[in-house]
Amino acid sequence: MSDSTSDAGDLNAVLSRLSTIIESRRPDRGGDPDASYVARLLHRGPDAFLKKIGEESTEAVMAAKDLDLALHTGAGIDVGRQRLVGEMADLWFHCLVALAHYDLRPADVLAELRKREGTSGIEEKALRKAFAREGS
Amino acid sequence: MSDSTSDAGDLNAVLSRLSTIIESRRPDRGGDPDASYVARLLHRGPDAFLKKIGEESTEAVMAAKDLDLALHTGAGIDVGRQRLVGEMADLWFHCLVALAHYDLRPADVLAELRKREGTSGIEEKALRKAFAREGS
Amino acid sequence: MSDSTSDAGDLNAVLSRLSTIIESRRPDRGGDPDASYVARLLHRGPDAFLKKIGEESTEAVMAAKDLDLALHTGAGIDVGRQRLVGEMADLWFHCLVALAHYDLRPADVLAELRKREGTSGIEEKALRKAFAREGS
Amino acid sequence: MSDSTSDAGDLNAVLSRLSTIIESRRPDRGGDPDASYVARLLHRGPDAFLKKIGEESTEAVMAAKDLDLALHTGAGIDVGRQRLVGEMADLWFHCLVALAHYDLRPADVLAELRKREGTSGIEEKALRKAFAREGS
Repeated sequence: MSDSTSDAGDLNAVLSRLSTIIESRRPDRGGDPDASYVARLLHRGPDAFLKKIGEESTEAVMAAKDLDLALHTGAGIDVGRQRLVGEMADLWFHCLVALAHYDLRPADVLAELRKREGTSGIEEKALRKAFAREGS
Repeated sequence: MSDSTSDAGDLNAVLSRLSTIIESRRPDRGGDPDASYVARLLHRGPDAFLKKIGEESTEAVMAAKDLDLALHTGAGIDVGRQRLVGEMADLWFHCLVALAHYDLRPADVLAELRKREGTSGIEEKALRKAFAREGS
Repeated sequence: MSDSTSDAGDLNAVLSRLSTIIESRRPDRGGDPDASYVARLLHRGPDAFLKKIGEESTEAVMAAKDLDLALHTGAGIDVGRQRLVGEMADLWFHCLVALAHYDLRPADVLAELRKREGTSGIEEKALRKAFAREGS
Repeated sequence: MSDSTSDAGDLNAVLSRLSTIIESRRPDRGGDPDASYVARLLHRGPDAFLKKIGEESTEAVMAAKDLDLALHTGAGIDVGRQRLVGEMADLWFHCLVALAHYDLRPADVLAELRKREGTSGIEEKALRKAFAREGS
């Protein structure tokens, strides 16, 4: 799949724009649980949208396993890749719903990721964490 | 947490930049499993990084539950929010690793999310999916 | 909660009895997807019941976190424990559905657990596995 | 895999026996975190063993997907079944650790499952729950 440069700026702002829409669905901001899926999730409370994170991560893992199979057999690769992308989108979407509930924004997560960035930076952080776990 | 406008463009490009670095860690592109955490994950194959998606999503859910508690008691809110952000960053990071393995990029997921965007758009898609599930 | 000795034998056989019922719901054994939840899951295929395992494990984790809170505040402990038991039951139930699909039985899992049993046995196995992971 | 009748009684009691051993590893009952994997998990607190539930359920799902592939290709079926059984055993084992932390026993979960038993019983309960979700 391609990453058209012409709309990269627009694409990069998707998380931020989606987040703004999701925030407007918060019950304390007038979101209507009967009219909106997101408002309904937020209205039902944390367990409702957190459960979706567990569910969608499992679906993403299953889609990835199916794509592995498609890549080995050579059949259904495009459909498999599109399905994995769709499940990842579902997972990230419900992460945004959770963030909105807790007054957090995708920019907070991106800023955290940026901290770990840099050739040595990411690796250092991740390896340090991995080593810390191994020592525990 | 705030979303400083001055570096919004930079922030939005974090996923793309991280993805480029991660791709360079692929074993078929010279990534060294002994020197890099990401190269090691990619070298060990899908189950290694897919398992991390399941693990990090569980940690994100637990961090959210702890933040709920902090918000109710009024103690540890800042730490709780930072922890949730950190777990979401871990989750998204390992999603990027999985995408890199399958020759996919964050732009593919963002493009999928953009399709679902728009006041009616998101809701329509999500509700349609929810209704489809209820009918099955 | 108590473990009444008088019906312990009966209780221990629950997994086996449930498994027999679940097997009778397999589509290839006459299970009717329109009349039975289990037959419907089995009819829809692996992703349907595997997704439930991911979902129910997340719900069990959330129930446990809520029970932690109840134990700290002293309020809602009984309800919290009952909810955790209920989510664990849901998780194990869907594990039985998965096993039935693959021609496996709870006795296979119990036999595997028995192998790891014995004061030193469990610890040895678990520690060996943990160390193996740390070394990888 | 077979369910040898001769040791069925013994097998059925595995959960109960394992649970007794796990309970003896609780820090408040003298479990030594330096000598025992279970004592270490219990000593580190809920997030440590709850995370394992999320992790092992993901591994069980991946093992099931791999077994599906093996069943389709006809290669690696025995290994695949043994791996699924092993992952289920890991999942149930960590459920027992969580139960022990909360003063619960496998008998509590089995009693809950028994309540749902009976041809109509299971289906009724599960269908009622499914319908309740669909209505929400």
